[in-house]
Amino acid sequence: MSRPRRETNRSTGPEVSTGVAEGNAFVERIEVDPTGSGPLDGLSFAIKDLIDLGGHTTGCGNPTWRDTHPPASVNAVCVEQLLDAGARCMGKTVSDELAFSLLGENHFYGTPLNPKAPDRVPGGSSSGSASAVASGLVDFALGTDTSGSIRVPANNCGIWGLRPSHGFISVAGVNPFAPTFDTVGILASSAEALARVASELLACEEVSDEEPATIHLLKEAFSIADPDVQQALEDPVQGLRSLFGGCLRETSVWEIDGEPEASEGTGFQRWYETYGVLQWAEIESCLGAWIEATKPAFGPEAAQNFDLVKSLNRRRVKPAVQRREEYFRRLKAFVGPNDLLGMPTAPALAPPKGTMAPRGHAGSGDYYPRALSLTSVAGIGRLPQVSLPLAESSGGVPVGLSLLTAKGRDAFLLNVVERVAAFLAT
Amino acid sequence: MSRPRRETNRSTGPEVSTGVAEGNAFVERIEVDPTGSGPLDGLSFAIKDLIDLGGHTTGCGNPTWRDTHPPASVNAVCVEQLLDAGARCMGKTVSDELAFSLLGENHFYGTPLNPKAPDRVPGGSSSGSASAVASGLVDFALGTDTSGSIRVPANNCGIWGLRPSHGFISVAGVNPFAPTFDTVGILASSAEALARVASELLACEEVSDEEPATIHLLKEAFSIADPDVQQALEDPVQGLRSLFGGCLRETSVWEIDGEPEASEGTGFQRWYETYGVLQWAEIESCLGAWIEATKPAFGPEAAQNFDLVKSLNRRRVKPAVQRREEYFRRLKAFVGPNDLLGMPTAPALAPPKGTMAPRGHAGSGDYYPRALSLTSVAGIGRLPQVSLPLAESSGGVPVGLSLLTAKGRDAFLLNVVERVAAFLAT
Repeated sequence: MSRPRRETNRSTGPEVSTGVAEGNAFVERIEVDPTGSGPLDGLSFAIKDLIDLGGHTTGCGNPTWRDTHPPASVNAVCVEQLLDAGARCMGKTVSDELAFSLLGENHFYGTPLNPKAPDRVPGGSSSGSASAVASGLVDFALGTDTSGSIRVPANNCGIWGLRPSHGFISVAGVNPFAPTFDTVGILASSAEALARVASELLACEEVSDEEPATIHLLKEAFSIADPDVQQALEDPVQGLRSLFGGCLRETSVWEIDGEPEASEGTGFQRWYETYGVLQWAEIESCLGAWIEATKPAFGPEAAQNFDLVKSLNRRRVKPAVQRREEYFRRLKAFVGPNDLLGMPTAPALAPPKGTMAPRGHAGSGDYYPRALSLTSVAGIGRLPQVSLPLAESSGGVPVGLSLLTAKGRDAFLLNVVERVAAFLAT
Repeated sequence: MSRPRRETNRSTGPEVSTGVAEGNAFVERIEVDPTGSGPLDGLSFAIKDLIDLGGHTTGCGNPTWRDTHPPASVNAVCVEQLLDAGARCMGKTVSDELAFSLLGENHFYGTPLNPKAPDRVPGGSSSGSASAVASGLVDFALGTDTSGSIRVPANNCGIWGLRPSHGFISVAGVNPFAPTFDTVGILASSAEALARVASELLACEEVSDEEPATIHLLKEAFSIADPDVQQALEDPVQGLRSLFGGCLRETSVWEIDGEPEASEGTGFQRWYETYGVLQWAEIESCLGAWIEATKPAFGPEAAQNFDLVKSLNRRRVKPAVQRREEYFRRLKAFVGPNDLLGMPTAPALAPPKGTMAPRGHAGSGDYYPRALSLTSVAGIGRLPQVSLPLAESSGGVPVGLSLLTAKGRDAFLLNVVERVAAFLAT
């Protein structure tokens, strides 16, 4: 069923070949010169094919979408910012269909290479962006993150990834999926590049080193993870302890959400359900009309996902909004401006390619419920989160550690991340 | 050029006539029963035709838009919340074309009645929603507010209007216009109804009376307004003084933005320009591709507005983002959780119908620059704002006073507004 990617090149620069030699990261190679000069001079980037580049159709990882939408008239606002700050665009990268997956196995465009673990999936939905960065084809890439689509690929490919505080990087020119949770995020080959790009997009103030007050290691988030993930994270956690001393603390999720400890299952059951109801309700609002009118060709995973979304009882929306805002307020009260939360980015090593059945099918296992339990914390809290590529399994598969902080404190978080990177490099 | 509105009725209730008898507020009468029972039992509402009702096409005030888009598959998330809380939907209301006006004179669907000033415009773009509320056809209505599309109609029609903190009421199922500033807002016939509906949509916590710390009356915002507006607001300001005593203070905008006083023009020049560049950049990202591909029929005002948007030099985006975030941070530092800002909602009485030339044309005057100077404060600051219908001109034309507070403090703001309403009613 695979169809060839377009090899169009309406570039301002020399033609560059795409395809297998580049690990299938790009859906379209389009070189766009910087429009200005600034802090991103000399850096190259790619953008997920969910983000507009003027004159090109944003394909959203699905051929029917591409064929039923006109070309973007202008670059997305976030792309204008990058070009004007001196960065050079190298093309558009493969996305999971309409951004609806954490795997990165696109039925139509193939699976971008995970160069750190070639037999495993790169993670999705910003799969091509992560692949391009991890393969060294670009210095950084833009993706989107609604429920983990930056964080999980960063984890799987062993690179740095930021989901910013919700509502600060413009989503104009970025296809809406679930606006309450949608963010434009950044994947980068170094903590320094990540911070530099984020600082440009977020228009952050300069931040000098501020000491973390408390780093809460979320107990249930670690115990939800597979033993090989837990084991891989022991050293990085020890590193945090050496760097920041006594401010690390083991914290239970019930200290945040106030739910009785005994009734919680994994502790994240309510977070995961609350997040899921709202995400599905919003996806149907954003994409349902087009799906009904167009009857698009979907791969099996996307088809199953959109069927699930359509089956949601929308009377679940109102209580989910209420719980979401309650948990949001509890997180806000709990996570002070200099506090951090620490957790594994993902509950398991990147799954081997071609092994995951669509959600809801036998064989899909509990990867999604566990992964979304972890990613729902930043989603519900509107918090920024960085996945740090600090570990690997005994077999050499990348494992990410995540740090989160209070909403709007992205600059503080990135500063801490840079300090951790420098400390662990020495 | 006027074309008749559709009189379709796929309602669950009895057919209701629309049209002139109802002041042209509705574009489509569709009665939808509540799906649940709760705090909004017994209240009726209407929604702007920018917000999805399942099974109906969201027309966005433009016939070409309506004819080139499929029907919504489901209700917008915010509509689900209202129905489930016990409210009854009565239909969809006229919007300015693609929400791009503050006037409410739709070339295709006509001008909804401003019952408090029948010779004057109702204000836009949530014109029909304001008209329906002011005419007593519904208890409250949903609209959208990007640059004043709730606040200005509330002002013109003499009703209560809330633009909430950005990012808290779901915009899923609401047509994107400039996402960085887009909000779903509420128009209501009383402060009590406004607070009750907002509390449901925002899933606020209960708030008991908290005293305001400081109420900053923004000096340049008052002096930008016409003398009859300034005069009409003297009594309401005196009322605030009587109610809250010594916490009122005259404040200059340069105390917030730190710009040298002498270089400011009206004091809001930079706020207005910064807001305008980002809004136009985002509008082009959201609607430019459709306009280029479809060549829609526009009325003269919309045609002119979209031409202006297209002419924006997008190299102005990056510095505008930087200034926006700088002003955002300054506002955040200045407006504490119990502080308020006070200003006129609009700089002038509602313009007489048919008198305003499109922006940029001779005869368009300075209404827009002044109006957007006032509305840009909440836009840039992501702040909630309520327009209170507390005054009228000597000729009986409504004049609104606006109160703003810190982001996320909507519940506090609504509580203050209810106290003001109760105090001035006695």
